Amino acid sequence: MLEKFDFNNFDENYSETKTSSLGERLACIQRECNSLKIPVLILIDGWESSGKGYVIKDLIRELDPKYYKVKMFQDETSEERMKLFSQEFWKNIPQKGDFAVYDRSLYHRILSDYNLNKNCLDSRIDEMNNMEKVLYDDGYIIVKFFLHVKKETQKENIKENMDDINRNFLVDENDLEQNLNYEKYLKHFDYLLKNTNSKENPWNIVSSENKKKASKYIIGKTIDELEKGIERILKTRKKGIDSRKYDKNPKYLEKIDLNQSVDKDKYENEIRDLQNKAAELAFILYKKKIPTVIVFEGMDAAGKGGGIKRLTREIDPRGYVVSTTSAPTEEELKYHYLWRFYKNIPHKGFMTIFDRSWYGRVLVERVENLATTNEWDRAFEEINNMEKEFSRFGMLIIKYFHYIDKNEQLERFEDREREKTYKITEEDWRNRDKWDSYIIATNEMLDRTSTNYAPWHVIESQDKRYSRIKILKIFIEKAEEFIRKGEKNE
Amino acid sequence: MLEKFDFNNFDENYSETKTSSLGERLACIQRECNSLKIPVLILIDGWESSGKGYVIKDLIRELDPKYYKVKMFQDETSEERMKLFSQEFWKNIPQKGDFAVYDRSLYHRILSDYNLNKNCLDSRIDEMNNMEKVLYDDGYIIVKFFLHVKKETQKENIKENMDDINRNFLVDENDLEQNLNYEKYLKHFDYLLKNTNSKENPWNIVSSENKKKASKYIIGKTIDELEKGIERILKTRKKGIDSRKYDKNPKYLEKIDLNQSVDKDKYENEIRDLQNKAAELAFILYKKKIPTVIVFEGMDAAGKGGGIKRLTREIDPRGYVVSTTSAPTEEELKYHYLWRFYKNIPHKGFMTIFDRSWYGRVLVERVENLATTNEWDRAFEEINNMEKEFSRFGMLIIKYFHYIDKNEQLERFEDREREKTYKITEEDWRNRDKWDSYIIATNEMLDRTSTNYAPWHVIESQDKRYSRIKILKIFIEKAEEFIRKGEKNE
Repeated sequence: MLEKFDFNNFDENYSETKTSSLGERLACIQRECNSLKIPVLILIDGWESSGKGYVIKDLIRELDPKYYKVKMFQDETSEERMKLFSQEFWKNIPQKGDFAVYDRSLYHRILSDYNLNKNCLDSRIDEMNNMEKVLYDDGYIIVKFFLHVKKETQKENIKENMDDINRNFLVDENDLEQNLNYEKYLKHFDYLLKNTNSKENPWNIVSSENKKKASKYIIGKTIDELEKGIERILKTRKKGIDSRKYDKNPKYLEKIDLNQSVDKDKYENEIRDLQNKAAELAFILYKKKIPTVIVFEGMDAAGKGGGIKRLTREIDPRGYVVSTTSAPTEEELKYHYLWRFYKNIPHKGFMTIFDRSWYGRVLVERVENLATTNEWDRAFEEINNMEKEFSRFGMLIIKYFHYIDKNEQLERFEDREREKTYKITEEDWRNRDKWDSYIIATNEMLDRTSTNYAPWHVIESQDKRYSRIKILKIFIEKAEEFIRKGEKNE
Repeated sequence: MLEKFDFNNFDENYSETKTSSLGERLACIQRECNSLKIPVLILIDGWESSGKGYVIKDLIRELDPKYYKVKMFQDETSEERMKLFSQEFWKNIPQKGDFAVYDRSLYHRILSDYNLNKNCLDSRIDEMNNMEKVLYDDGYIIVKFFLHVKKETQKENIKENMDDINRNFLVDENDLEQNLNYEKYLKHFDYLLKNTNSKENPWNIVSSENKKKASKYIIGKTIDELEKGIERILKTRKKGIDSRKYDKNPKYLEKIDLNQSVDKDKYENEIRDLQNKAAELAFILYKKKIPTVIVFEGMDAAGKGGGIKRLTREIDPRGYVVSTTSAPTEEELKYHYLWRFYKNIPHKGFMTIFDRSWYGRVLVERVENLATTNEWDRAFEEINNMEKEFSRFGMLIIKYFHYIDKNEQLERFEDREREKTYKITEEDWRNRDKWDSYIIATNEMLDRTSTNYAPWHVIESQDKRYSRIKILKIFIEKAEEFIRKGEKNE
């Protein structure tokens, strides 16, 4: 894309129009996106010293500051190296109706290193493509620009900045190094751009030989892309429910034997040792900087809360967090549904226990029609891709589904009503009415999201003691296995 | 407090009760706080290797994880050194109804350095006291514990941890160094604890010679403090409006000459140069790592938005953010009113422009009765203290109040109604009905929050050109002055 780029025939559809009137048109479209609640992501990447600051300044000039933000991606700090690659990206996605302008974006971290090993590079490319796809499908508009300059021009720009006493701090070794190795970077950039140039979210290569022209082109092109995007999204919104390709009818839960139990003596003999062992393993995971995610899903009243309490009893509370997922708040609803979960993904060495999770999309949101068929059907793949990303980050992922039968649930609900009213609500009773739909949804979830990097464990929870012992045993087994594998690879 | 602490007569009121039943009582009170929407902050600080993890584990055991979080304060990273001292604290304060348990808290950063210079130490102490006071006054309950151990016990604890292969990473040089210099630290801690031992938020010194006893004491004491706190807060909530001590009637705005204007030619001659100069100074502020806060307040339609646009026109958008303050969201209402502003305080080198700000507390919230008299009357001092903290952080603070008269506002409202409907709402008209109340509130604000570190600048905004030129000139003058002063001190 870059190698064959013709600087002389750079598209200048917008050269006839004044920058200020383009700016005003963009401001109009900003208001339109705002009232239609369409989120917009504009990525400005490119060579060092190619004028990114200049073009962003022009781009935002006429925008209403209430509804846009500029996010600058800088070199990774030591703190960021403890985080999932895409976390910073997700944290900064725009709210519905807002613009986000990224200076360099997450691509920067890959672009700046042409020695990145091929595997790692391809994983990152895969992740970038997934992220953009996920947002695109959810009705985001993404416009991607790459500022391209010739080697000599870049050199001149660097020199100009260095000679300006107020701007010389903008130039660092990276700029110089990039110019020296221009050809190598060109090849590296080209590979990256080609492989992230999807049909949905293509790159716009911009000649930045003349910054004024580049800037005008970017505003003009953004307007065009937004107009196209708005049209596409309005069409999708109107469209009804697609037919689904999934035609299986798995019966995992039917095969579960709910009669298993542990008697009180055996339980009290075992539980302490298991809890101490779990705490010891949690220390090792922390020490080895392994991030851990544990998902607790299950029927209402199946004992998720009690299970979490037993699992964590001896674990140092400074190393883990329990993240409870309720109905999304007003703020959370303004973002993509995965946004609130990405926020709570643990850094290296830490553990997050999700009491309910992103699987709400394919369970409660499916059953209660809170998501469209397209949305929840698409979510299986989105979730698998997300968990794959976690796994590549070196994460231990354990997913429990707590299963009880309908009669047991009734007894527990009735107990709760008698004793502790705060734990039972109208909603619980309503959910119960849809028991069969939940069974269907759960079976499909178990079928479609059990992967080798993040398999489901169904926990027979009719007997609470059995359930708690099993949770601990699985945690211990999986953690030990993960640590052992890690040691082999060291 | 520590030096005369009698380890042998350590209070053990709770030794008779079982830890588990104390835990259950605490869980009951957690639910009570939750339903009363009372936020609770529990600080566990103390010597290194004194058992903080142990006592926190016991403390949270029976709590509902949905409504508490544990926050661990670690040594400052390079990223955190770019931030305001208290920002991490504010970021983590609990929502109304929730518990936050701090492992070590912000005190850690002061406690860990007995060589901290006296001035700096006393500033920090002042800031800690202010923060706690501000939260206390707003109906937070703060319970502070310091785990105290003898020198020999600390040494044994360190040795024990080092010998445990899974826990030895918990011990680092700081632990050893602290034990070696135990007496120096004891004196340092004592000074700090004495000076942050307020009547409202006192320290509880806990002997951690026996961790089990310490842990029981902490749960028991927390229960007692929460019961007292709930009583206090319910009483305050019931209490009516206090009489105010402020009896002045300042008339700043009356004296403002609104007839000043700049003609078009002069404006167009001057504005570009001023904007370029402002951009240049913004680069210097960035380069010198000076954080900048600019506050835009003023009458509706007085031209704040246009002023911001003119001020920032040539400034690199990657170095500043415009933060627009609207009515608080559902989430923001769950916190202290300053919480959302602390989130947006710039790091070193960056600039935040607030389009409306924390002054809403003493303007719109006062006039519209959205805050009680006690709340907004108290806010003047709270705001002054906050801005003093900003100033100590090395921040350039510029505050503009845009003033127009009532007729001019009417004309602008009518223009807006004719042309661009999106910029005028019912609310604007309602606010206008309370013009006189706004004048009184503004005069008091100008009187009580003009400090030498953060003075107000009233901008005569009847003539837009005059107003914009003046904003730029003040920015340039203040920035140059600030940079010059900084260079003298270098």
